[in-house]
Amino acid sequence: MSTPGVRELVDRARSGDARAVARVVTLVENGAPSLREAMALLAPASGHARVVGLTGPPGVGKSTTVTALVARYRADGKRVGVLAVDPSSPFSGGALLGDRVRMQEHATDPGVFIRSMASRGHLGGLSAATPQALRVLDAAGFDVVLIETVGVGQSEVEIARAADTIVVMLAPGMGDGIQAAKAGILEIGDLYVVNKGDRDGAEATMRDLRHMLSMGGQRALRAGAGGGSEGGFWSPPVLRTVASNADGIDELVAALDQHHDWLAESGELDARRVRRAAGEIEALAIAALRGRLGSPGDDGRLSDVARRVADGRLDPYGAADELVAGLTTGEPAAHQPDL
Amino acid sequence: MSTPGVRELVDRARSGDARAVARVVTLVENGAPSLREAMALLAPASGHARVVGLTGPPGVGKSTTVTALVARYRADGKRVGVLAVDPSSPFSGGALLGDRVRMQEHATDPGVFIRSMASRGHLGGLSAATPQALRVLDAAGFDVVLIETVGVGQSEVEIARAADTIVVMLAPGMGDGIQAAKAGILEIGDLYVVNKGDRDGAEATMRDLRHMLSMGGQRALRAGAGGGSEGGFWSPPVLRTVASNADGIDELVAALDQHHDWLAESGELDARRVRRAAGEIEALAIAALRGRLGSPGDDGRLSDVARRVADGRLDPYGAADELVAGLTTGEPAAHQPDL
Repeated sequence: MSTPGVRELVDRARSGDARAVARVVTLVENGAPSLREAMALLAPASGHARVVGLTGPPGVGKSTTVTALVARYRADGKRVGVLAVDPSSPFSGGALLGDRVRMQEHATDPGVFIRSMASRGHLGGLSAATPQALRVLDAAGFDVVLIETVGVGQSEVEIARAADTIVVMLAPGMGDGIQAAKAGILEIGDLYVVNKGDRDGAEATMRDLRHMLSMGGQRALRAGAGGGSEGGFWSPPVLRTVASNADGIDELVAALDQHHDWLAESGELDARRVRRAAGEIEALAIAALRGRLGSPGDDGRLSDVARRVADGRLDPYGAADELVAGLTTGEPAAHQPDL
Repeated sequence: MSTPGVRELVDRARSGDARAVARVVTLVENGAPSLREAMALLAPASGHARVVGLTGPPGVGKSTTVTALVARYRADGKRVGVLAVDPSSPFSGGALLGDRVRMQEHATDPGVFIRSMASRGHLGGLSAATPQALRVLDAAGFDVVLIETVGVGQSEVEIARAADTIVVMLAPGMGDGIQAAKAGILEIGDLYVVNKGDRDGAEATMRDLRHMLSMGGQRALRAGAGGGSEGGFWSPPVLRTVASNADGIDELVAALDQHHDWLAESGELDARRVRRAAGEIEALAIAALRGRLGSPGDDGRLSDVARRVADGRLDPYGAADELVAGLTTGEPAAHQPDL
C-alpha cells in the first residue's frame, strides 16, 4: 500500500525541508499508518548523525545547556536537531512546552530543528518513538541530534540509551549522593556535568560525584584524573558548566568529541547502534504482542484469566502460560492489530 | 514438580510465621523456580488485605508517614505489611535501606512485616514482583499492606496501581505546579497529602493542589469541599500532615477508611483488583515472550534483525514483523526460557 504522498514527503525531508521533517516527526508521534512506509524509505539514509542524550533531574538546567550546545554547534556550521522527551506523564500525553521557550532564539534558524516529543498513539511508546524520530533527523542530514529527557527513572534511561553518548547532569544542592545512587545515574553516564557551577556547593558536588564514580568500580576513574579514554576503557569525566552564560560549553563539546572518537575507535559506536535498533525493534514487537493479548476491559483472554486470578481460582503464572500458549499456537486472539 | 519444602513453607507463611513470610517474599524477589508453585498455593488465600500505595518525590516524608501509619494501625490491633519499592534504578537491583532505618521501631513487632523490594531476577520486573509480594502478605493474613514507592515516573505509577488506594504525597516548596502536572500525579491520586504541613508554604501548596485538581476536570473537586464520595463519584481530598509527630495521621486513616468504603460500595474495588491481576499476568506473559525474542547480545533472531536495521538494510517495522511471525508460527526461537 504505497502512498505517493509519503514518498514525496520523505524525499523532501531527506533533502532537509524543515516543514517536511516536522511532518514526518508528527507521523512518528502519532503512530500514523503511513509510518511503516516512511520508516522503510528513511532506513537506508540513516546512521550518520551523532546522537547525544542529556538527562538529569528537573531543574538542573538541561534546556539551558541544550540551548548553549546548539549555539556552539551552529557556530561550527553544524545542523542540529533537538528532541525533548518527557516520559514521566503516562497519561496526559502532551510534553510541556514551558522550558522550550528559552530555545526560541533558534526557532527561526533553518539549521536547527526542535521538537518536544510525546508518545500519544505510538506503538511501543516513547521507547520506540524516540529512535524513530532520531532516524528522521538523521536521514534529513542533521549532524548532531540532542535528546533531552527529564528525570532518571527507568523509562528515561531507555530513552537516553537511544543516544551514542549519555550526558548526566546534576546541579549543586540537588540532594545527597544516596539519592543520585538510587536513580542509577552513576551507571549510565559517559560524561557528567555539574551545571550552575558558580553556585555554592558546586565543588562539593563534583567531589562527591567523582568519589562515587570511583567507588562504583565498574568504570574505573582514577583519583585526580579528568576522565577520558585510557587503555581501551572510557573513564567518565566530571565537568563544570554555567550554561546560562556558556561557561564550560567549549570544554563539554571537546569532551563529547573525545567520547565520540573513543566510541568509533573501540567499536562501541557500532555496538551501541545495534543495541539501539534492537531496543526499538523489541518495543515494536512487544507492543504488537501486547495488543494480541487483549486488555482487561475487553472480552478477550486477558480479561478472562485476570478475573480468575482476582478471584483466587488461578495463579498468575498459570494465567500467563494460558495467554502465551494461545498466542504462539495461533488461536484466534482478542485483538489482531496491525503491527 | 511439586516440592515438599515449598508447600510447607507456604503453609507456614499462611499461618503468619514471619520468617516463612520473609522467605517467600525472597522467592518473589529472586524469581526462584519454586515461585510458580508457591503462587499457585497462595492464590486461593488472597484477596482480603487492604492495599494502600504511597508515592511522591524523594524527600516528602513517605517513610515517616508509613511509620506513623504503621503505629496507628498497630494501635488498632491490625497486622501491617510494608513493601518499599524503588523502581528508579534499573541496574543495581538493590533497594537502598537508608530510609528504612526509621522504621526500626517496628522491627521487632511480629504484627509488622517490612521489606525493601528489589526486582533482581524477577521475570516481569517490579511490575510483576510487587503484586506477588502483596499476594504473599495478603495470604499471610496482614490486614493492611502499605506500598511505598519513590518518585512518580511511569514505572512508579504501574507499581502504585497494585494498590486499592493511591496516596500522592507532596511537601511545601517541592517545585511549582507545572512540575507536578508533568509527573502525572494529578491523575492518579485517590488522596493527596501535603506533609511537613507546619512549614512555610504548606497552605499555598494545598491551595495550588486543590486548584489544579479542580482544573483537571476528570475528578470533579468542588471549590471549598474537603473531598470524599458524592453521587457515586470520588473526589480526592487534600490533607495536611506533619508525619514526624503524627499530626493529621488520624485524619489520613479516616480518609483511607472512607475511600475503602467507597471502593467497596461502588464496585471499583473489584474492578481495580481485576486490573491489578491483569497487569501482573501481562507482565509475566510479556517477559516470557521477550525472552523468546532473544537479546541483542546472543546469536538469535533479534540480533540478526537489529544488525540489519543498524546498517539501514531493514526498517524496524519489517524487523518486528519478522520477529513476531517467527514467534507465533512456532519456529524454534533463540531462547525458550521457562515461564
